[in-house]
Amino acid sequence: MPRLAYVNGAYVPHDKGAVHIEDRGFQFADGVYEVITVEQGRLVDEEGHLTRLARSLAELEMDWPMTARSLRIVMRELIRRNRVRDGIVYLQITRGSAPRDFAYPAGVTPTIVMTARRMNLHPPERTERGVSVITIPDIRWKRRDIKSVALLPQAMGKQKARTAGAFEAWQVDDDGFITEGCSSNAWIVTKDGVLVTRPASNLILNGITRQSLLRIAGELGLSYEERPFTTEEAYEAKEAFISSATTYAMPVTQINDRVVGNGRPGDLVTRLRAAYRSYATGVPRHAA
Amino acid sequence: MPRLAYVNGAYVPHDKGAVHIEDRGFQFADGVYEVITVEQGRLVDEEGHLTRLARSLAELEMDWPMTARSLRIVMRELIRRNRVRDGIVYLQITRGSAPRDFAYPAGVTPTIVMTARRMNLHPPERTERGVSVITIPDIRWKRRDIKSVALLPQAMGKQKARTAGAFEAWQVDDDGFITEGCSSNAWIVTKDGVLVTRPASNLILNGITRQSLLRIAGELGLSYEERPFTTEEAYEAKEAFISSATTYAMPVTQINDRVVGNGRPGDLVTRLRAAYRSYATGVPRHAA
Repeated sequence: MPRLAYVNGAYVPHDKGAVHIEDRGFQFADGVYEVITVEQGRLVDEEGHLTRLARSLAELEMDWPMTARSLRIVMRELIRRNRVRDGIVYLQITRGSAPRDFAYPAGVTPTIVMTARRMNLHPPERTERGVSVITIPDIRWKRRDIKSVALLPQAMGKQKARTAGAFEAWQVDDDGFITEGCSSNAWIVTKDGVLVTRPASNLILNGITRQSLLRIAGELGLSYEERPFTTEEAYEAKEAFISSATTYAMPVTQINDRVVGNGRPGDLVTRLRAAYRSYATGVPRHAA
Repeated sequence: MPRLAYVNGAYVPHDKGAVHIEDRGFQFADGVYEVITVEQGRLVDEEGHLTRLARSLAELEMDWPMTARSLRIVMRELIRRNRVRDGIVYLQITRGSAPRDFAYPAGVTPTIVMTARRMNLHPPERTERGVSVITIPDIRWKRRDIKSVALLPQAMGKQKARTAGAFEAWQVDDDGFITEGCSSNAWIVTKDGVLVTRPASNLILNGITRQSLLRIAGELGLSYEERPFTTEEAYEAKEAFISSATTYAMPVTQINDRVVGNGRPGDLVTRLRAAYRSYATGVPRHAA
C-alpha cells in the first residue's frame, strides 16, 4: 500500500504531493502547522492542537481551508489509509498560492497539506537513558507564540545540536534565561522537587503537551512554578526534561558538558511521562 | 505564448510549476532568494545579487543547485522566453525535499525555482509624487543579513502598510532606530544635505541597490553617513527615500501622518534615481 498524503482536497501518493511554486508557504513562510501524535490509534491532545491551530490562523488573519469538523475526519481517514497506529499526523495550512507580493492576497483559497507516518514513540535508548541538550542563543522573532512555518532558526539550531551530538538545543535569551528547545519546551526540577518551566508569552510556543503536563502535575499534587530559569540553574537542577507532541516528557540527562542530577532519568519526569501516556492512550494509570 | 517558469532543470508553464510538499522551503523556510531587476533587457546589478546569493547559501551551509555560470544562462533564457524587457527575475533556492526533520538532511539535491515577469519599473504616480511609509516595531529574527524566505514578519508588516494606505512599513528597533523597510532599505537626507542610511550588520539586509547607491553617491561627490537614525530624525529630514531592486531609489514624501520636507520628491533622491537608472541601463547619465 503506497503512502498517501492529503493535499487540497485529494488523497495522493506521498511522493507526488505538490504545491505551487508561488504558494505563500514556499515563498514567504506564510503558513502554520501542527503535529499531532497518534498512539494506539488515538489522536493525542487533539482538542488542544486544533485550538492552537485556530489561534495561529486568527493571529495571521488566515482562513480555514475547511471546517474543523472536516479536518478531523480527514486526519482519521489519513491515519486509516496509512495504517498508522503509533506515529504522527503533520498538518500545514498556508495562505494559498498567489502572484508574489508581500501583503496578503485577497480571494485566495488556503493550501492544506496533511501527511501521516509511523514512529516509535518510546525509543528506549532515549526514554531509559535520557537525551542531551546544548544551549544556543535564541535568535528568533518575537512572535514565537504563533506556530508558523518560519522555522529556519529552529532548523539551524537543531543542526547545531546534531553536530554537537545532542538531541535538542535549548535557546537562551539575552538575559541568560532559557526560552525553550527548537521543537520542544524546556523543564527542570529543582533540588526541592519543584517543577519549573517558562510561562507562556510571545517568547515561547505554548506547547500543547506542556499545557497537559501542567494540568497532570496539578492532578498528581506536584509543585510547579511557571517562571524563567537560567542555564546555571538547569546545571544545578535535580532533573531536567523536554516536552513536545512526539517526545511527551523526555528526560534530559546532559546539558552541554554537564551531567544533570545523577545522570539518569529522574523520578518526576518518569512519573509525568507515564501519566501523560496513560492520558494519551486513555488507559488508566494503574493499569498502564 | 504561455508564461514559463524554471523548476529543477525544466522550463514549465508557470501555473504548473510545483515543488514537493516536503520541500524544506515549504516546511521550514529553509531557503534563500534574490530578485533581480531587468531593465531594457539587462540584468541590473547581477554581480551583486549573485555575490549575496552565494553568501546566503554559505551562511546556511546550503549547496548551489547548479553553477553560477549555468544560473546566469537560465536567467537569460527565462527572460527571453517570457519576453521580459522591463521586469524582474525571481530566483529561489531551498535545501531540497526530504522527510520532515528540523536538522539538515544529507545527500539532498537543492530545489531551484526561477520565475520572470514584466513590471513597470517607473510608475509616475510613485516616482513623481513619492510614496508614504508607516513605522512598526521590528519583530524579526537576528539574522536579517541572510536573504531567507522566512519572510512572515515582513509579510505581516507589508499588510499593515497596505491597511494604512501606505506603500511600505519601516521597522523600528527597541531603541527607536529605524532598521529598514519590509522589502527595502531606508534613507534620509538631513537638513545639511547629508545622506544617511543604517550600516550593514546582522540587523538589516544589505541591499544590493543600497550598496550601488552608496557607491554612486560617492562618485557624485555627495556626503553620506552610514549610521542609525530615529523616526523623529526622519520626520525632521529634508528628504526620505527607500531603495530596493525594483524601486531603485524611490522618494518617500510621508512618514506616518507627517509630511517629509516640502511634500515632494527631493533633489538628492531624484539625482540618485536618475544616476542609478543610467548605471542600470548602461546609458551615460548625460544622455539619459
